Amino acid sequence: MTHTIHADRFLSDLRELAQIGATPAGGVSRPALTAVDREAREWFRRKVVEAGLEYAVDGAGNQSAILHSDPPSPKRILAGSHLDSVPNGGRFDGALGVLVVLEALRALKENDYSPPVSIEAINFTDEESAIMGLMGSRAMSGQLSASDLASARLPQSELDSRLAAAGLSRESMLSARRDNVLAFVELHIEQGTRLETAGVPIGVVNAIVGIRALQVRLFGEAAHAGTMPMQLRRDALWGAAQFVLRARELVMRQFTPGVCNVGIIHAEPGAYNIVPAQVTFALEFRHGSEAEMDNMQSELMRLLDDCARDYDLRAEVEATPPVVSAQMDEAVMQAIERAADKLGLSRQRMLSFAGHDTQNMARIAPSAMYFVPSVAGISHNPNELTSDADCVNGANMMLGTLLELTKQCQQ
Amino acid sequence: MTHTIHADRFLSDLRELAQIGATPAGGVSRPALTAVDREAREWFRRKVVEAGLEYAVDGAGNQSAILHSDPPSPKRILAGSHLDSVPNGGRFDGALGVLVVLEALRALKENDYSPPVSIEAINFTDEESAIMGLMGSRAMSGQLSASDLASARLPQSELDSRLAAAGLSRESMLSARRDNVLAFVELHIEQGTRLETAGVPIGVVNAIVGIRALQVRLFGEAAHAGTMPMQLRRDALWGAAQFVLRARELVMRQFTPGVCNVGIIHAEPGAYNIVPAQVTFALEFRHGSEAEMDNMQSELMRLLDDCARDYDLRAEVEATPPVVSAQMDEAVMQAIERAADKLGLSRQRMLSFAGHDTQNMARIAPSAMYFVPSVAGISHNPNELTSDADCVNGANMMLGTLLELTKQCQQ
Repeated sequence: MTHTIHADRFLSDLRELAQIGATPAGGVSRPALTAVDREAREWFRRKVVEAGLEYAVDGAGNQSAILHSDPPSPKRILAGSHLDSVPNGGRFDGALGVLVVLEALRALKENDYSPPVSIEAINFTDEESAIMGLMGSRAMSGQLSASDLASARLPQSELDSRLAAAGLSRESMLSARRDNVLAFVELHIEQGTRLETAGVPIGVVNAIVGIRALQVRLFGEAAHAGTMPMQLRRDALWGAAQFVLRARELVMRQFTPGVCNVGIIHAEPGAYNIVPAQVTFALEFRHGSEAEMDNMQSELMRLLDDCARDYDLRAEVEATPPVVSAQMDEAVMQAIERAADKLGLSRQRMLSFAGHDTQNMARIAPSAMYFVPSVAGISHNPNELTSDADCVNGANMMLGTLLELTKQCQQ
Repeated sequence: MTHTIHADRFLSDLRELAQIGATPAGGVSRPALTAVDREAREWFRRKVVEAGLEYAVDGAGNQSAILHSDPPSPKRILAGSHLDSVPNGGRFDGALGVLVVLEALRALKENDYSPPVSIEAINFTDEESAIMGLMGSRAMSGQLSASDLASARLPQSELDSRLAAAGLSRESMLSARRDNVLAFVELHIEQGTRLETAGVPIGVVNAIVGIRALQVRLFGEAAHAGTMPMQLRRDALWGAAQFVLRARELVMRQFTPGVCNVGIIHAEPGAYNIVPAQVTFALEFRHGSEAEMDNMQSELMRLLDDCARDYDLRAEVEATPPVVSAQMDEAVMQAIERAADKLGLSRQRMLSFAGHDTQNMARIAPSAMYFVPSVAGISHNPNELTSDADCVNGANMMLGTLLELTKQCQQ
């Protein structure tokens, strides 16, 4: 018997979800556990219930749709991604990976398919770093600590109020570890141009790069922007600007294909007529090799010291929890590849340069993920786009992969 | 008859006022028309009434303490400065210049001195650019327009609510022009090191530099900070960082003693893992010559275009109302110098690199100002300091200057 997903219903869901947190430019803005993200979560809950699937939510706010085996198996195959987005992001990053599993389970249920083991679709909480990034999968894989919560990227009072508004707490967050996962699979958009360039519709991820994120503060001295001669100033922004430019050169010269980004910056006290006393910025860098990540970090910190010295500043650095690189499971990759072969879709193995919940899930279960193409590689941007055909391929691939995985788990 | 100020009472007032908006580091934070500035204004009103001086406030929120001639003259000598401060600023910038006049009028009144023309102490509204800078003196000198208010540095709704909280409105702001000013004088701290270096206690300002302030926006393209290769990014922060560094070099190389500052900067959308699509920053620059200001602006705008081109960005620039340079009045400078000579205080003429309300008052009346030393030139900083002795000199100088001016006005 051949199962396929219901393409129109699935694409209609995608469009409907994109209305929640929609931005004028055509993207979405759904930072984790804000009001708009809670709206998306409620939409998902309703869809699950309407589909006749079991709905559940864990202590970390991870939402589930479950298609049970008969009788329900103690262990389950999990698959999913996230509904939260970066501020002013796109419609596909994460959302597509949740909806393909919802659609796959709906299609299976409609066909009265009774899986040999229960299958669970997941919407992970805070993949996109509004709080810390990959938070839901950290919690589910037993890697979340109270100190991770204490060093979250938003004020602690704001963290507590967002958790409370979603019916969660610090205590519940720490109790979400799962030990009933047989395998995990995730679909995601590539967010790069390699598939598009190669004309290949499916990328099978064999490893995910590590990510390190630092909050950097440079301290100089406030001064009157008119009366203090420029050569006597200790302007914290001068040091920060030099670091931004030289970090770019350093990483491009010595660490390609590694990358770095300064995505947040502000100066204090923050007035036209005051020389900045303090500049705070967010530095993130990624590499496929942990050894090269260590080298990057050393070189970047040496560069920071140089920039601070050049302008008589003092530097402070605070690390947020890192994401270590992760290898994907060979058996799960092969399940994905068999699904692609059965659908006649060509595929290639590749690295993921973005972090994904799969790298946490890989700690507790055989895991892998696959990519569908992103038009022009644009992501974290309202213009993010994956064609309807590639979305439908992704959903049929999920259905096929889940069936392959149920066969493996039976054996 | 010799008049002198009451030093203990005057210094006690200075300390008392410094408690309002006091910061842990020992400075004050009193941005214009915020709750804490309104508290300082109420403190001033009470002091005026307690001194038995007439209290008045105009449509721009400028507060006055008036010592009337008998009968009250139609025209008046004005003197004053401002009680508002930059965020996290110092205790002396502005406040000293208001309190010396309050103390001078109190001393004259105690000595039953009846001036030949009425003398008025002024606390100008928003000298420090929380709203637009020099706002009260713009209004008093008839230079404030509705469009200046529309391009204020804070959101329009916030402007309206601050005005309303102080009992003001856009309409009242535009009706504060005065035509009864015989002369104006202001004391200010130097905010530089020239007096300290020269060992001279009094600086007689002969001209005030012009100030131009631009809000600059650089537009690139948001992208995923992992998957987008660095050489394909259009990172708006790269262009902004390059501009900050090159503007510094340009101004130091070609326009000394002119200065520039970037005191505000932020990146959007503002996340660790998104390449900045947009960076907004505040650029301010100053020079004693309007012709050189024009050259600076041309060169800085050419540099901005170069930086935008280097990183495939687009630049937008919005000007806030400029302050033009101003020459001081010879007769008022001589009144200040005679007062210094009578007190046995050495003095020198000098430029002011900071903008002051005097430059607006110079449009409607003979005006000048004088400086007292700033320890180490530190200003717009909690460590801003002028010694008690220099503060007392400043107050006695104000008393003497006002008496000199009343003599001039009689002649």
